[in-house]
Amino acid sequence: MTILSPLATKVFIPVAAVIGIVFAVVQWVLVSRVKLSPAAAAASGGGKNGYGDYLIEEEEGLNDHNVVVKCAEIQNAISEGATSFLFTEYQYVGIFMSIFAVVIFLFLGSVEGFSTKSQPCTYNKDKYCKPALFTALFSTVSFLLGAITSLVSGFLGMKIATYANARTTLEARKGVGKAFITAFRSGAVMGFLLASSGLVVLYITINVFKLYYGDDWEGLFESITGYGLGGSSMALFGRVGGGIYTKAADVGADLVGKVERNIPEDDPRNPAVIADNVGDNVGDIAGMGSDLFGSYAESSCAALVVASISSFGIDHDFTGMCYPLLVSSVGIIVCLITTLFATDFFEVKAVKEIEPALKKQLIISTALMTVGIAVISWLALPAKFTIYNFGTQKDVSNWGLFFCVAIGLWAGLIIGFVTEYYTSNAYSPVQDVADSCRTGAATNVIFGLALGYKSVIIPIFAIAVSIYVSFSIAAMYGIAVAALGMLSTIATGLAIDAYGPISDNAGGIAEMAGMSHRICERTDALDAAGNTTAAIGKGFAIGSAALVSLALFGAFVSRAGVTVVDVLSPKVFIGLIVGAMLPYWFSAMTMKSVGSAALKMVEEVRRQLNTIPRLMEGTAKPDYATCVKISTDASIKEMIPPGALVMLTPLIVGTLIGVETLSGVLAGALVSGVQIAISASNTGGAWDNAKKYIEAGASQHARTLGPKGSDCHKAAVIGDTIGDPLKDTSGPSLNILIKLMAVESLVFAPFFATQGGILFKYL
Amino acid sequence: MTILSPLATKVFIPVAAVIGIVFAVVQWVLVSRVKLSPAAAAASGGGKNGYGDYLIEEEEGLNDHNVVVKCAEIQNAISEGATSFLFTEYQYVGIFMSIFAVVIFLFLGSVEGFSTKSQPCTYNKDKYCKPALFTALFSTVSFLLGAITSLVSGFLGMKIATYANARTTLEARKGVGKAFITAFRSGAVMGFLLASSGLVVLYITINVFKLYYGDDWEGLFESITGYGLGGSSMALFGRVGGGIYTKAADVGADLVGKVERNIPEDDPRNPAVIADNVGDNVGDIAGMGSDLFGSYAESSCAALVVASISSFGIDHDFTGMCYPLLVSSVGIIVCLITTLFATDFFEVKAVKEIEPALKKQLIISTALMTVGIAVISWLALPAKFTIYNFGTQKDVSNWGLFFCVAIGLWAGLIIGFVTEYYTSNAYSPVQDVADSCRTGAATNVIFGLALGYKSVIIPIFAIAVSIYVSFSIAAMYGIAVAALGMLSTIATGLAIDAYGPISDNAGGIAEMAGMSHRICERTDALDAAGNTTAAIGKGFAIGSAALVSLALFGAFVSRAGVTVVDVLSPKVFIGLIVGAMLPYWFSAMTMKSVGSAALKMVEEVRRQLNTIPRLMEGTAKPDYATCVKISTDASIKEMIPPGALVMLTPLIVGTLIGVETLSGVLAGALVSGVQIAISASNTGGAWDNAKKYIEAGASQHARTLGPKGSDCHKAAVIGDTIGDPLKDTSGPSLNILIKLMAVESLVFAPFFATQGGILFKYL
Repeated sequence: MTILSPLATKVFIPVAAVIGIVFAVVQWVLVSRVKLSPAAAAASGGGKNGYGDYLIEEEEGLNDHNVVVKCAEIQNAISEGATSFLFTEYQYVGIFMSIFAVVIFLFLGSVEGFSTKSQPCTYNKDKYCKPALFTALFSTVSFLLGAITSLVSGFLGMKIATYANARTTLEARKGVGKAFITAFRSGAVMGFLLASSGLVVLYITINVFKLYYGDDWEGLFESITGYGLGGSSMALFGRVGGGIYTKAADVGADLVGKVERNIPEDDPRNPAVIADNVGDNVGDIAGMGSDLFGSYAESSCAALVVASISSFGIDHDFTGMCYPLLVSSVGIIVCLITTLFATDFFEVKAVKEIEPALKKQLIISTALMTVGIAVISWLALPAKFTIYNFGTQKDVSNWGLFFCVAIGLWAGLIIGFVTEYYTSNAYSPVQDVADSCRTGAATNVIFGLALGYKSVIIPIFAIAVSIYVSFSIAAMYGIAVAALGMLSTIATGLAIDAYGPISDNAGGIAEMAGMSHRICERTDALDAAGNTTAAIGKGFAIGSAALVSLALFGAFVSRAGVTVVDVLSPKVFIGLIVGAMLPYWFSAMTMKSVGSAALKMVEEVRRQLNTIPRLMEGTAKPDYATCVKISTDASIKEMIPPGALVMLTPLIVGTLIGVETLSGVLAGALVSGVQIAISASNTGGAWDNAKKYIEAGASQHARTLGPKGSDCHKAAVIGDTIGDPLKDTSGPSLNILIKLMAVESLVFAPFFATQGGILFKYL
Repeated sequence: MTILSPLATKVFIPVAAVIGIVFAVVQWVLVSRVKLSPAAAAASGGGKNGYGDYLIEEEEGLNDHNVVVKCAEIQNAISEGATSFLFTEYQYVGIFMSIFAVVIFLFLGSVEGFSTKSQPCTYNKDKYCKPALFTALFSTVSFLLGAITSLVSGFLGMKIATYANARTTLEARKGVGKAFITAFRSGAVMGFLLASSGLVVLYITINVFKLYYGDDWEGLFESITGYGLGGSSMALFGRVGGGIYTKAADVGADLVGKVERNIPEDDPRNPAVIADNVGDNVGDIAGMGSDLFGSYAESSCAALVVASISSFGIDHDFTGMCYPLLVSSVGIIVCLITTLFATDFFEVKAVKEIEPALKKQLIISTALMTVGIAVISWLALPAKFTIYNFGTQKDVSNWGLFFCVAIGLWAGLIIGFVTEYYTSNAYSPVQDVADSCRTGAATNVIFGLALGYKSVIIPIFAIAVSIYVSFSIAAMYGIAVAALGMLSTIATGLAIDAYGPISDNAGGIAEMAGMSHRICERTDALDAAGNTTAAIGKGFAIGSAALVSLALFGAFVSRAGVTVVDVLSPKVFIGLIVGAMLPYWFSAMTMKSVGSAALKMVEEVRRQLNTIPRLMEGTAKPDYATCVKISTDASIKEMIPPGALVMLTPLIVGTLIGVETLSGVLAGALVSGVQIAISASNTGGAWDNAKKYIEAGASQHARTLGPKGSDCHKAAVIGDTIGDPLKDTSGPSLNILIKLMAVESLVFAPFFATQGGILFKYL
């Protein structure tokens, strides 16, 4: 039926994953060539200062040997802080995951009263399917696998980032191009490791489960959805905990350092500076890694579970069934080629080439991927197949499905560019925000909020069009593969995303190591480009989250036996309005958490600056550890209530009130959450870059607003500080809120369908 | 069938309205006894300073005669500015209304191709109804009537407020109690005039239209919905235009005056001070009056149009049909009694009694109204009647319907109290926000935003429960009367609302007339209480808007022949997500408008302060007129794009894409808009009162943050300024967005049902 034989499929997927992993290792080896210990550097390179191959600019008045040692020291401190935080976080999350695993097993096991007998299948009552008890068991296992994969992804990402940051700093001495490549390669290590391991673990899980399920693909892929739930639950705690950690430290450091004491960002005299740098790694790297892994796992699961009840599942067409995994496999190859464009085919020589180089990555990967999707759709899909959805059936051609994937991919690019337009200081929106700082912080905030609200318009239309077109072509399967399309270039996306915090850290290390102004300018330029790309990455994450959630929602509704979600039914409508409220509730919690933790940080920083003698003169060292502890304690404590809100809502609503109301809640949270998430992250990005615009003073206009320390600049710093929790804590966490509630509902759908709504049953 | 005969109904409604109008006139006469010209005062009272009856405290170093003259002068300036702005606004709105009236006529007339023949009825095909052309004509007429009533309500409110503000200032010399009564009575004039005229115009319109329609109640009440559309369109421009006006002036005045020059609020040296005071009258008085009138008109129309297809309409039970109007009539009587509690039965003697007195108004009116509703439900409803909704029928008892109205009423009170809790500085949320000012404006903003988000939770649950219960009892009719219940005490609500800006103005006039510190403290205390009640009023407005919109939405869906609004249909879902985006788009426009206009204002104020000699010394007068002109021009220009967004969206979506998508848009805008509206207005209210908390320094904690001019206070002022457009422009305008789109869709439903969706028809 398909050109690609099942055997070829079975070979291609793991091979692509292995290629991705090998590529990541190669990149890592290239990064590790930059030596961090002066002895090793001398041994490897020889020559005057251990970098014989290159002409290293001498630092005025600084002994090169000392600089390298200092960088290594700082890197160690950051790495240790991050590792210790993640271990603490994982302990708490581990407890939660264990409890939740038991809940999953008990709830799903109870669907048929823990019976070990085979039961009639859900969609085809003539056939017998595996007992619910075993599906409960396998769901639990895949949940744990997803959680562990996500955890490992985040942890490895953090390790790589803290391995690369000081190396990027040292390379910055040789020029901006060398530093860029080091940072970007390190990002690529993370991107490829994550994409490949996500794929390979999922693939192995499917094949192992198949040993038990055999021909019961319905049950097989139902239990596989636990993988998405595990990935996303882990991501929730990673994002929220990491987000609170990083922003408490960042806001606390800025409020005292920049605003009160007028010392620069990342100044080693600031006691919160190490905590701030640790935060970048646990929040923006580990948290974001888990988040995107979660999206990827969920969109794959959503596509698979919908496909399992299509003609692929019924005809047991293995290649067609594996189409979502094949798209991801092609994505890895495409991203590999794309990466070479940044690291080998072209060279970044000047500061102004950095941002275009990163943007080119997005465009190249999207263009190549379009071809890749076309090829794999032609090879792996039958010319015609049938999708069953909500009681109707839909005939789809392979070209139709190609179109669904491609529209998701391109919608992602559009969202990326719109985000860039609204958050880069090369365009008028951010410049207007910067200009409004003339009249103080209040107008800056008003303009920034307005910018964020406005930036929602085009992404929402892009998402709406993708939904309409892909649904019209292939119902909910179309939406699931559109989400997958948006995420198919995840390796490149993650590489670009991770590049940002690595450069940010590199800048921090340069400042702390007391490197020259020229070096710091280079790392700042790397960081500024990273800021915009971080916003773009968040745009992708949100866009894909919207599509994924809708696909999961569709799968949930289908599995729960709901045939229509009618807004005119009061049960649905109250769900809709309460669901639309949840992102606000969640944001209130996370914003307040950052605020309270930042207050504590401010007090500690003030205390140290006031009581430690000779600290401000730079001759005494601050107590970094206490600040690290404040951030750690706050984030561990504060991640629980928002986490509980997200995890418990579907359980409570589904169990007590029923699936109609839960459907309303999911739809409401989706349509409301996506707006707040986009506006929050763009508002924050715009404020950050408006501040950078004033600081850089690159244009006539910018110079009239600056320099650093002017009233305008102070107003801009206030905006930047407000934006921190919006763009790095509450905004991106909302993606997870909408996805996680949807995937959780899907996993528990068999339980809700049989046992749910007890409040109305017994009232 | 009903205890109350049709004749008694015909008498009771106009009599209640007339009683309301007479009561308003009496209150006005009482206010007018405070004389503003020194000669008249001397003639009427005799005695040393023209106030023989009372012992007026002598102003130190101020000639009393001069103070009175000065107050009169300032009042004239404010009144002239407000009148001239409203006339300009009404000219533009008039043009728009005329065009839109033509659009209504043409669109609705085209439903049956402008045929003058009778047609089978929509809901009962066996009967013949009046031709669509005449319904188009009558809809147009009722649209214009609604618009004119709204316009007159707003204008009269403004006139009364500017008549009362200086009088309140003068009364403040006699004590806080006298000033309170004057301000409150003036608010009552507005409240009763508006509630009564809204009722009487609607009642007369129904009776006049009935002369043509006769027994065709379906057509009659369909055409009556134009009244709601007219009221709300007018309100849109009033709220948006007035909101931009007032906040441009306020923000502009504060940014230069308070932040840069350190001169107090309402200082006569500030060139924007008159514009600021004018703004209170055109935004918070005229705009809010139009807004609540719109809600009232719409909820009545929604209830009537649903009732017309119930057993009331079919059996031609006039009393039952008029139940919504009877509830409003009872409301007027109840509010009349309630008002006496504030003005006659009890007396406010001290500052701390003001807020409780206003709160008591809410409680008393709600308690009495509950009894009133019970009585009228027993008298005016048959024991059992039938509601037809979405193809099903529902038997409702009179006590069931009583319960629907009452739950709306009490949900309103709950929303009011929650709003008070989150915005009054007597409770911990606002105190926490004030406390966060210790670390600067950034934490203040973060805490304030978090507070706003959090304040959404309980109101949404209150709304959800009301919807669920009232729908379960009486389908969409239940929701419509629940909205009506929430608005049944509108006269008291408006009196309290209008009291706020009047006191605010009184304080401004006292400051500008150079009255003593003691007098200013009294007017400040009146104003502070008004701040909280304004937030409560906004809570009511939003809550009722949510219910009204849902009822209108239900009526629209019913009229457009949509039987199910299925979220799983892509046409509906894209409507839902785009609809949820619209409040963001709208807010982006209004926030940016305020920001830009404020920037212009700041430049002008700075220019005057820098170039007019001896202005800062207080010996030269600023050029108030230029600032008034800046606000006027900005608001007229800037109200058009958001107005167009709201008015055109239903037309474009309904005509081009069709009714399913439009249903999605309405539902999305409703569930998303209500959240932003609540959070925006509470965040703004909280910041305002956090600032006042620091300024007043009434507790140990507050004194550690103050005094005025401290760093904490400066941070609080920044928050207050940011909150201005949130709470007075974008937030409250969102009510109108959600209501207006719903009522517009309802009015155009016959057109959309027959001619809509042309994009898909011809594609």
